[in-house]
Amino acid sequence: MASIFTKIANGEIPSYKVAESENYFAFLDINPMVAGHTLVIPKHEVDYIFDLDNAEYKGLWEFAQKVAKAIDNAIPCKRVGVAVLGMEVPHAHIHLVPLQSEGDMDFRKEKAKLSSEEFVAIAAKIAESFDRL
Amino acid sequence: MASIFTKIANGEIPSYKVAESENYFAFLDINPMVAGHTLVIPKHEVDYIFDLDNAEYKGLWEFAQKVAKAIDNAIPCKRVGVAVLGMEVPHAHIHLVPLQSEGDMDFRKEKAKLSSEEFVAIAAKIAESFDRL
Repeated sequence: MASIFTKIANGEIPSYKVAESENYFAFLDINPMVAGHTLVIPKHEVDYIFDLDNAEYKGLWEFAQKVAKAIDNAIPCKRVGVAVLGMEVPHAHIHLVPLQSEGDMDFRKEKAKLSSEEFVAIAAKIAESFDRL
Repeated sequence: MASIFTKIANGEIPSYKVAESENYFAFLDINPMVAGHTLVIPKHEVDYIFDLDNAEYKGLWEFAQKVAKAIDNAIPCKRVGVAVLGMEVPHAHIHLVPLQSEGDMDFRKEKAKLSSEEFVAIAAKIAESFDRL
């Protein structure tokens, strides 16, 4: 069965899309640590990021670098942090999190509450920034 | 002034080395979340990982993939998690953390206490595993 992320990349499940290329897709995490928290995935459904073949693995990180630069430009932050845990959804995904401090990268803290209008506005801002890169 | 990580890569400050290539270096975090927690750095001293040029950035992630596979083989874990925060030492570094559960990736929890003999044994085990890849 297709993962929830495959359904998101295929448009079967709606998402706040940030960026897309032939092989990769980026969208806002709907349970964000902070506003602008983005997930980057390969369209090819592989559970464990280190199992991706060399070209796809490097392509994913290259795409994530561009998305991170777009977040840096669109969202006020000191830098964009990275995390890959991947035990909940069996489809490799990179968390990109705009950080003001190291404490912002905390999977246990209460999630930011955003309205759908706020998600739409944030995704649009990052997407515009991505397209300018 | 050279960063503490540059001094480690140069051997001016001792470390529990796990792997090394021409441009990259991996060693055990001495304040580990769990046993086997490893840091991967470019020898070239750049503060922010997303500022690395394309080739060096992709080379760093490729090297980290090999180190992660070595950790996977050497340390009992479900998978190896990834984090990049980088606000404390101004030299880009990737945390690779062998995880039993997502809760193991927690920068705030109490660090694992290991003796120097344990660090030596863990580093040797990962290094052997790396060399076999």
